[in-house]
Amino acid sequence: MGKVRVEVSYLPGVEDPEAITIAKNLHILGFDGIKSVKISKVYEFDVPDMKRSGEVTEVARKLLCNEVIQGYNVKEE
Amino acid sequence: MGKVRVEVSYLPGVEDPEAITIAKNLHILGFDGIKSVKISKVYEFDVPDMKRSGEVTEVARKLLCNEVIQGYNVKEE
Repeated sequence: MGKVRVEVSYLPGVEDPEAITIAKNLHILGFDGIKSVKISKVYEFDVPDMKRSGEVTEVARKLLCNEVIQGYNVKEE
Repeated sequence: MGKVRVEVSYLPGVEDPEAITIAKNLHILGFDGIKSVKISKVYEFDVPDMKRSGEVTEVARKLLCNEVIQGYNVKEE
């Protein structure tokens, strides 16, 4: 049993409204030590037969990631 | 300038409906090499003065994580 981790995040230069809102509200709440925040989502897949781990890359590219605004990173563990 | 990474994920035993739906649909689509998936969210904070990095842990605990069903992990980079 292996694990394959996919991290999906916004491409540089793409605005993430959730991240902007969090950063703005942290300042209002007084957390001035934090300048900005970048959010990404991690999918950790259980792959019983690691010879088939290529399926995860296909899933990341076709289904998890909108390549117009997002990038992904696949890491086998 | 330092970076502090917070990963928020469901505690073991807590059902994540999004992850269950993804796993189910991957099987319908023929990706049988994947058994299950665990989803987490990563917040990467820019902290100009790393002496104030403790603020990030406070933000993670108080604001980003629902400790009834989620756990978090803070890592300085």
